[in-house]
Amino acid sequence: MEIALGARADPNRGMSHRFIVIIAGGKGERFWPQSRAAKPKHLLPVVGSKPLLTQTIERVKPLAPAKNIFVITSAVQEKAVRSVCKGIPEANIIAEPMGRDTAAAVGLAAALVAARDPEGVFAVLPADHVIHASKAYASDLLAAFAAAEAAPVMVTIGIPPTEPATGFGYIQRGEKWKLFNRRQVFQVKRFVEKPKQEVAEGYLASGDYLWNAGMFVWSVPVVETALARHAPALDAGLKPIRAALAKKRPLAAALKKTYPTLEKISVDYALLEKADNVVVLPASFDWDDVGAWPAICKHFTPDAAGNVARGLTIIEQGGGNLVFSDGGHLVAVLGVNDLIVVHTADATMICPKSKAQDIKALLKRIEALPAGAKWL
Amino acid sequence: MEIALGARADPNRGMSHRFIVIIAGGKGERFWPQSRAAKPKHLLPVVGSKPLLTQTIERVKPLAPAKNIFVITSAVQEKAVRSVCKGIPEANIIAEPMGRDTAAAVGLAAALVAARDPEGVFAVLPADHVIHASKAYASDLLAAFAAAEAAPVMVTIGIPPTEPATGFGYIQRGEKWKLFNRRQVFQVKRFVEKPKQEVAEGYLASGDYLWNAGMFVWSVPVVETALARHAPALDAGLKPIRAALAKKRPLAAALKKTYPTLEKISVDYALLEKADNVVVLPASFDWDDVGAWPAICKHFTPDAAGNVARGLTIIEQGGGNLVFSDGGHLVAVLGVNDLIVVHTADATMICPKSKAQDIKALLKRIEALPAGAKWL
Repeated sequence: MEIALGARADPNRGMSHRFIVIIAGGKGERFWPQSRAAKPKHLLPVVGSKPLLTQTIERVKPLAPAKNIFVITSAVQEKAVRSVCKGIPEANIIAEPMGRDTAAAVGLAAALVAARDPEGVFAVLPADHVIHASKAYASDLLAAFAAAEAAPVMVTIGIPPTEPATGFGYIQRGEKWKLFNRRQVFQVKRFVEKPKQEVAEGYLASGDYLWNAGMFVWSVPVVETALARHAPALDAGLKPIRAALAKKRPLAAALKKTYPTLEKISVDYALLEKADNVVVLPASFDWDDVGAWPAICKHFTPDAAGNVARGLTIIEQGGGNLVFSDGGHLVAVLGVNDLIVVHTADATMICPKSKAQDIKALLKRIEALPAGAKWL
Repeated sequence: MEIALGARADPNRGMSHRFIVIIAGGKGERFWPQSRAAKPKHLLPVVGSKPLLTQTIERVKPLAPAKNIFVITSAVQEKAVRSVCKGIPEANIIAEPMGRDTAAAVGLAAALVAARDPEGVFAVLPADHVIHASKAYASDLLAAFAAAEAAPVMVTIGIPPTEPATGFGYIQRGEKWKLFNRRQVFQVKRFVEKPKQEVAEGYLASGDYLWNAGMFVWSVPVVETALARHAPALDAGLKPIRAALAKKRPLAAALKKTYPTLEKISVDYALLEKADNVVVLPASFDWDDVGAWPAICKHFTPDAAGNVARGLTIIEQGGGNLVFSDGGHLVAVLGVNDLIVVHTADATMICPKSKAQDIKALLKRIEALPAGAKWL
């Protein structure tokens, strides 16, 4: 890959041409019973006192005017999402009638931005990650915007790995490409799927691999070109949405008609793995996707026995536990270790930390209950 | 000991001269959070669908008319006790102002019966044991009444031990004494306190020892004589209560004045261990004092993995658990074994079966909470 710099550099383009599209989806399974289908992780104050989506909006506000910030969510979550998106215009909160994975969401995002600015540059960002270093986050994204404005590239933000994680995709970086705002950007050699343990250890040792956190910055033309080239069916499927936006017709009707027909595929697989104009900017901020209950612990200060607790709880003769309660309900735990106990108004979940990845097995059992949907 | 038969045998004395005094006390600690100070084990349907006290009343109804059945409870439990004692005259439910152990309760029981029948024979029975064989229970008690009517003896019901339990006192039986209603009654050699494991194993192997279940049948004169001889201070302390009963003055005032002055001592220690006219009738009924949560399991039919559950529960990938929920609250347990999980409206308790004896440690922590009494 050889990327020419300056192809679309325009020093006069400012913040008003920058857009943020926050993808607020998710099934709400891994933090059950706090998370539910209509209230997944990004709607919870998993860490901190505000929902993660609200925290994400606050982090991106320095990057673009509020009228340029979009939130894409799902129909079942729309109401709750609207209630936590203070300061974002109502029309900028778009509900997909159903989840069609991230390629469709990126296509929708590009269409939304294009209707405002056909040359606009936009960031696609997940709503449910925990990031404390807001300034570094904003600074990295500004560098990514500068890169996406300087050349027709797909800029990914790569997270320097801190452990040989097997739950993330990795980005192998190649040659240095260019400095933006004092941040080095690299060409991308390849994307790799979730690796096995030994492979992940090799990635970590090499220093050449970054975690793919699903954060992208690019221009409307770059995304449109990539869709047309690498995902023509999806591209064609998006046309009624673009037409509705162009003619200022109600978007909901177009989404409802078109979405069921769209291919369900991730943007990584549909576009990024196939493109030859991808660059990566290694993040300088802390990052955690808090994938399940045990991941929460490191964001809390534990007691002397390593217990993390929220709400009205007592932990006696035990360590390493995570015990959350709410609504003034007392949860009293005696003589257990490394256990997760989460109490909510209508359901309580108990499992060892080592089993937190299997919560889906519980949810299958709940689905089979009479009126089980009540708890999902 | 040589006990002369027939000393007070009177074949004309019938059921109307028999009385039952049920002792319904307890602190409500071991089944927390279902049990509370104001709602201890005997007020819970620990096993079966009715509170254990209600089950006890139903079991004794064939033995004496309802007007001859008394229930002695404590002030804090009185209201709840009254609500489950259907068919028992209100005046027969007596609340001790405070717990003064079983010797005082037996003294009060003797005074209550004496006021109705100075020659009456009465059984003292705990309210919180689980007994399924109601017919055998009634038949054993009828034999015990016959024994207590035949001679001035203290009849204890001894439970044939099924394991070398270290949590009960034992009764060593001596020579055969007499058959009553085809049930053999033995003279008692001695009472022994809760033994160590090796000692308990010896008791079990010998076949000569029975568990002391706190079930006694005796006449008013026998108890009054024993009190006067073995516990003169307590005997003197009870006089105002006897006087109030004789003069039909309100009992509550006498209890309130006298009770704080009474010695706190068990009836075993105060009377039975010192008396030489004690006999024992080995029980033919099943018996369980269900001393703590794990003891409940054997009264339920477990699932294939050995789990016992009540209420709306899901147990996934785990065995040997006891999971109780109430009020339509869903308790979902994943990947744990031999755990006790009990959810109630305002509190949830979680501990391994092996730690169930330490619930008191939790209650101490709760006492220290702001407004902790709310949960006790």
